[in-house]
Amino acid sequence: MTEVNLGLYFLSELVGTAMLLLMGCGVVANVALAKNKGFNGGFLMVNWGWGLAVFAGVLVASYSGAILNPAVGIGLLIAGKITFVQFLVAAAAELLGAIIGATLCWLAYKQHFDDEPDPANKLGVFSTGPAIRSYGWNLVTEIIGTFVLVFTVLAFADFGDIKVGTPGGLGPLTALPVALIVVAIGASLGGPTGYAINPARDLGPRIAHAILPIKGKGSSDWAYSWVPVVGPLLGGSIAALLAPVLLHLAK
Amino acid sequence: MTEVNLGLYFLSELVGTAMLLLMGCGVVANVALAKNKGFNGGFLMVNWGWGLAVFAGVLVASYSGAILNPAVGIGLLIAGKITFVQFLVAAAAELLGAIIGATLCWLAYKQHFDDEPDPANKLGVFSTGPAIRSYGWNLVTEIIGTFVLVFTVLAFADFGDIKVGTPGGLGPLTALPVALIVVAIGASLGGPTGYAINPARDLGPRIAHAILPIKGKGSSDWAYSWVPVVGPLLGGSIAALLAPVLLHLAK
Amino acid sequence: MTEVNLGLYFLSELVGTAMLLLMGCGVVANVALAKNKGFNGGFLMVNWGWGLAVFAGVLVASYSGAILNPAVGIGLLIAGKITFVQFLVAAAAELLGAIIGATLCWLAYKQHFDDEPDPANKLGVFSTGPAIRSYGWNLVTEIIGTFVLVFTVLAFADFGDIKVGTPGGLGPLTALPVALIVVAIGASLGGPTGYAINPARDLGPRIAHAILPIKGKGSSDWAYSWVPVVGPLLGGSIAALLAPVLLHLAK
Amino acid sequence: MTEVNLGLYFLSELVGTAMLLLMGCGVVANVALAKNKGFNGGFLMVNWGWGLAVFAGVLVASYSGAILNPAVGIGLLIAGKITFVQFLVAAAAELLGAIIGATLCWLAYKQHFDDEPDPANKLGVFSTGPAIRSYGWNLVTEIIGTFVLVFTVLAFADFGDIKVGTPGGLGPLTALPVALIVVAIGASLGGPTGYAINPARDLGPRIAHAILPIKGKGSSDWAYSWVPVVGPLLGGSIAALLAPVLLHLAK
Repeated sequence: MTEVNLGLYFLSELVGTAMLLLMGCGVVANVALAKNKGFNGGFLMVNWGWGLAVFAGVLVASYSGAILNPAVGIGLLIAGKITFVQFLVAAAAELLGAIIGATLCWLAYKQHFDDEPDPANKLGVFSTGPAIRSYGWNLVTEIIGTFVLVFTVLAFADFGDIKVGTPGGLGPLTALPVALIVVAIGASLGGPTGYAINPARDLGPRIAHAILPIKGKGSSDWAYSWVPVVGPLLGGSIAALLAPVLLHLAK
Repeated sequence: MTEVNLGLYFLSELVGTAMLLLMGCGVVANVALAKNKGFNGGFLMVNWGWGLAVFAGVLVASYSGAILNPAVGIGLLIAGKITFVQFLVAAAAELLGAIIGATLCWLAYKQHFDDEPDPANKLGVFSTGPAIRSYGWNLVTEIIGTFVLVFTVLAFADFGDIKVGTPGGLGPLTALPVALIVVAIGASLGGPTGYAINPARDLGPRIAHAILPIKGKGSSDWAYSWVPVVGPLLGGSIAALLAPVLLHLAK
Repeated sequence: MTEVNLGLYFLSELVGTAMLLLMGCGVVANVALAKNKGFNGGFLMVNWGWGLAVFAGVLVASYSGAILNPAVGIGLLIAGKITFVQFLVAAAAELLGAIIGATLCWLAYKQHFDDEPDPANKLGVFSTGPAIRSYGWNLVTEIIGTFVLVFTVLAFADFGDIKVGTPGGLGPLTALPVALIVVAIGASLGGPTGYAINPARDLGPRIAHAILPIKGKGSSDWAYSWVPVVGPLLGGSIAALLAPVLLHLAK
Repeated sequence: MTEVNLGLYFLSELVGTAMLLLMGCGVVANVALAKNKGFNGGFLMVNWGWGLAVFAGVLVASYSGAILNPAVGIGLLIAGKITFVQFLVAAAAELLGAIIGATLCWLAYKQHFDDEPDPANKLGVFSTGPAIRSYGWNLVTEIIGTFVLVFTVLAFADFGDIKVGTPGGLGPLTALPVALIVVAIGASLGGPTGYAINPARDLGPRIAHAILPIKGKGSSDWAYSWVPVVGPLLGGSIAALLAPVLLHLAK
């Protein structure tokens, strides 16, 4: 495939990111909102849920190469694998897709949102928040977590049949490595901030939280909202800048 | 393989779905019925159990392409991948296979069924039930969950060596993506209704529960039984109708 | 490879089964014996531990095709994939390997065995025992669990690069399906009897338990010992007899 | 690739081991340090975290073949797969990389280190320690655990596309077997000593712990520090010496 249809590209990123957020917010809803069958299911369940949410999202965004994340997008842009127009189109689609996915999650868990007394638990399904609030250190954590994501993706982006971020060429088994990396980041670096590691993943659902008529909702915590946008964009950029120096793929 | 022997097709779906239900009901029995070594093993264990039940079922239903689910069947029918006769033959086999599988699970856990005081726990091994009863919203949750299953299956159905729903061509590693998707749906969308996402998976065991001489059993909750049939069929149909628009597999 | 060196065949099965038991008994020791870092780690951890113990065992028994289990061996014998001599040589090697593996596990956890007050917990690291004792029903559970193992193994034994039970041809990724099936059997059918599903896995460590100078050990429960031998052999035989009828691999 | 650039070789091992320790220490920090979202997440979460830390580390150390561990290195040296110079260069890089990775972990969890009252929990994030202190038996456990790692790695090192320890040739899916083996070792043999199974993994972070200005830190427990160095080197050596006898890879 040589030419990219930007409309289909937009649609592909929108569908993939909607799938990602439906499933990702879903596992948090299951674990955090009372009366659910997965209530108190543990952080490892959340890690697998988000990792496999990426798996599902990649499967349905084959046309655009399944970027699904502006922090990955900025990394691919710096690495010269996508154009600036592709980055912008993808980022817009990802933000809109994230809003749609979070809304679908709210519908799937509608009664449990209505039934939940704590507004903080409701926001927690949509967006991330820090365990100990400190914008500087929270930013550091998000930068490191996203660095790991984009750096590893770049490490296998050119490998064999894997063509992450490249239109076409993605198959089910090639979605597995990135899914496992997201499980890993959640388990290993998700403790302090809940691992946004994706501006669209955090900002889109926060917008949905602000807009949707969620019963008994509280603040959307806009004061924190810049951290999971700026941190991932910085982490992805640093990864792409250091990759040519630190990675030496033998072909 | 060009011709399909409908007798073998029926047998293949029956065997695969019996395996699916034996293993799927089994993990719930292990976690829910007292004195079991996996008692209170957690929802993530249930998610892995059902996902790997699909893995086992797909492995043994290679002849028919391992549909194992009328909601997947209706999706493949709408997508033009199987004929109406194949859909009907498969659905009948899946229902009968589900009854057989649930019965085998009851035998494997016979003493724990006899020992368990709570009738609701016994029914819960066989069929799904809502965390908060509300037929409309329960239906929404089942539609969304099944949409994810059928939509992702269609996304990789034509990919590389993967030939889901196509006679022949299935191998062990190609069973993995659908197994992981079922783990994902359980973790992310299984909270409100226990994720039937398969009419045969719910109705077959419910029939088995009504028929079998289970000691101290209670109601089979027929009032709810239409939700996990209608919801998945709707979700699978919507997925197949939207797939040509929303998925653009690059070949 | 056409000729089989029976000495190497024996050694391969011995090494693979020793690895299987070292790792399999190990995860039970970690979860069951006090003061361990994995103490009370949950049944899902035990399931992953045993599944990946099979993974490790298969990796190191490539020469003999990694049978590792007389119940699989009897299935392969009935299916005509190994000779009677191969079956006998493998079974003897598996029993001896299981004794060695369980002994290595005891050494790895030596202090925790010494420190543990409950003799039942010590035996539980070595051999299986029923949650509710009833030889007839315990046998049924072991038959069903082993049927699933051998039936699924036969389903993918001829598939693509997978050559289970055939000398040579095994690679790391092809060890994964059988490992996942063992995780599945543990989660789904391991509740009532602790899923021996392998005569060597249960009898070998029981012999080791009887012989080794384990501090404060109690009975080796020989009254139960025939169940996890007879049940798996029956389950494997039934699977091999039904496989030609119930499985129709499309090539 | 025929010639190895030792500078790039050093850099590759440094980057891979830094990734390994960032992620591996990270999952312990998440589970052990108060207020984290993964606090008390369970030992299975720690096992998956370390296994996937190896996965991530292998992905980014493709140039050098991802040794990441002097115990693996000594095994590859004895097996004749790397030269003595490569072993030394790799070991030095691994030690330095481990210090860097542990330092990055400390930064990612900075506030939680500051907030944690127990110095033992802080050291536990960096280095391993025994559940029951007994240098002799602790050494036995580390020898057995590392034997499993190096023995299984050697078993599949020559298999198909897998080229562990060989410059080039590593891809994302080929990183999976070693990651699963590390999950297995943690679950099955990690109970008594916390499975260092890698001198660099333990010594590097211990040096970092001693150097870094960690608030309220206690002793670095140098008395124990030789066990997770000597044990793994012995275990890896024994594995490499026995591999030609006990493994018979059929080609």
